[in-house]
Amino acid sequence: MIVALAGGVGSARFLSGLLDVVRPADVVVVGNTGDDDWFHGLRVCPDLDSVTYTLAGANNPETGWGLAGETFTTLDALRRYGVPTWFNLGDRDLATHIFRTERLRAGVPLSTVTGEITAAWGLECALVPMSDDDVRTIVTASTPDGEVDFALEEWFVRERCEPPVVSVRYDGAAAARPAPGVLDAIARADAVVICPANPILSIAPILAVPGIRDAVAAHPRVVGVSNLIAGAAVKGPADRMLADLGIEASCVGVAAGYRDLCAAFVIDDEDASRAAEVEALGVRTVVTNTLMTDRSVAAALARETLAAVA
Amino acid sequence: MIVALAGGVGSARFLSGLLDVVRPADVVVVGNTGDDDWFHGLRVCPDLDSVTYTLAGANNPETGWGLAGETFTTLDALRRYGVPTWFNLGDRDLATHIFRTERLRAGVPLSTVTGEITAAWGLECALVPMSDDDVRTIVTASTPDGEVDFALEEWFVRERCEPPVVSVRYDGAAAARPAPGVLDAIARADAVVICPANPILSIAPILAVPGIRDAVAAHPRVVGVSNLIAGAAVKGPADRMLADLGIEASCVGVAAGYRDLCAAFVIDDEDASRAAEVEALGVRTVVTNTLMTDRSVAAALARETLAAVA
Repeated sequence: MIVALAGGVGSARFLSGLLDVVRPADVVVVGNTGDDDWFHGLRVCPDLDSVTYTLAGANNPETGWGLAGETFTTLDALRRYGVPTWFNLGDRDLATHIFRTERLRAGVPLSTVTGEITAAWGLECALVPMSDDDVRTIVTASTPDGEVDFALEEWFVRERCEPPVVSVRYDGAAAARPAPGVLDAIARADAVVICPANPILSIAPILAVPGIRDAVAAHPRVVGVSNLIAGAAVKGPADRMLADLGIEASCVGVAAGYRDLCAAFVIDDEDASRAAEVEALGVRTVVTNTLMTDRSVAAALARETLAAVA
Repeated sequence: MIVALAGGVGSARFLSGLLDVVRPADVVVVGNTGDDDWFHGLRVCPDLDSVTYTLAGANNPETGWGLAGETFTTLDALRRYGVPTWFNLGDRDLATHIFRTERLRAGVPLSTVTGEITAAWGLECALVPMSDDDVRTIVTASTPDGEVDFALEEWFVRERCEPPVVSVRYDGAAAARPAPGVLDAIARADAVVICPANPILSIAPILAVPGIRDAVAAHPRVVGVSNLIAGAAVKGPADRMLADLGIEASCVGVAAGYRDLCAAFVIDDEDASRAAEVEALGVRTVVTNTLMTDRSVAAALARETLAAVA
């Protein structure tokens, strides 16, 4: 059984490869919920939905978010009411948020609703939110008006990642409990994979839920995958924001953040020259192609990732 | 200043004519909310929205409900989650329900939200719900399983008005307060118009809110318009359900229900032979064309209706 800690789009792409090389029923994905937010009174879970839609083969590969062939009729109609519509919510995607919100308001935990959603999309692996409790990733960034706290999607989408990051915190994490089954799955897993994802925005919130970091640290076969290639993020602001936070924006910097968790770490061929530095952190290093241009590359990457801790 | 008590589609059509013959800013529409309901966690106000969309010229004249050119992408997508989707909610219509629900959950009264919605659609008249408190019109109907209580839209849409009606009640009405301004508007009105609408399902819930019936009864210039022509409803189940309830399904039966409120009552040319019976109820009777095939007919009908109590 494999546990995978996952963020959004990049993680989802990796997971689609993973499910090609291991039995889907043997995979438990623990998803980040730090950027979950309310839009128009609806609960939106961007990372959980990216994983669900991608694994269902329904994601939009061009935008990197949302569903393929999506329309935006309701969002356009909402503009009439003068509400902020900077967060793109497609008509079909809205059905997910409407369903989830109704269930949550009925008192059903997020982990249960997430299971209902993934079942409706035919997912064969388990997708579990890191916690049923609210955790909010807050990006404190420097603006012309001074330092401002942004919810993650505000900074990411509305502000287009432009305000330089001063610090990141995870509001609510200290009081959050891991979702049912998360700690047990980690303890029983044959391997724990940290998917390629922004370490500060996608993986750190998961690890900030009390109990999860300790469970991962206690596991002997944890393998991480770098989300950076030659110091640059394939998608998203990871490189610049890491630099803003004083972390080296490279596979070495990312590996350093995971050194007390990972037995092995996977870096890209383009970073082969940095392998010795990663090894020097005490982490077995695998060098391979991590640029998941298609599903067969993702599957090969997943195979090599698992082999590193076999 | 004119106050109009309104139900859904037929009332909305009449009101579009009314606004052609009086200054829109001088009209206060008091809307039925007895068939308001929750669908997918969203608050839907069918009659308020029918009035809003129709007066904005955005209604779908073919279906009689919803917006012209509407699509149903989100509703179709909701079917994946196995939730009941018998109530048709279009993509653009959903924006209204999403906006309203978010505002209501923020503690804003329905009357305030309704004002925001009508302003967004450019309405120049006032549209006020009968109450900010929940009132539920319950149709008790006879089914193969015995007598069953249906929320109005359940009986109307899901059950296609098929189960014979045993009784109708207005849950919550006794404890409801008229929305701010309703009683004052009635008291100050030059005339009160009871729009053509199902008397039991659309007008009675308004009158069931304590204070409203008394205010209307105390007004010297109240005029009603029959919703039945030659004993048949132009649209909807009014004729059969009146018969089920032991009320004569004719302009005379409707007028009898309003006799203690109305100084005058408008019936259709086809019912000219019944005029004497309506007069015998002590109600001045106007005979004219009430079949609002287009807006000019609606305007002529509105003009004659107001003239009856001028």
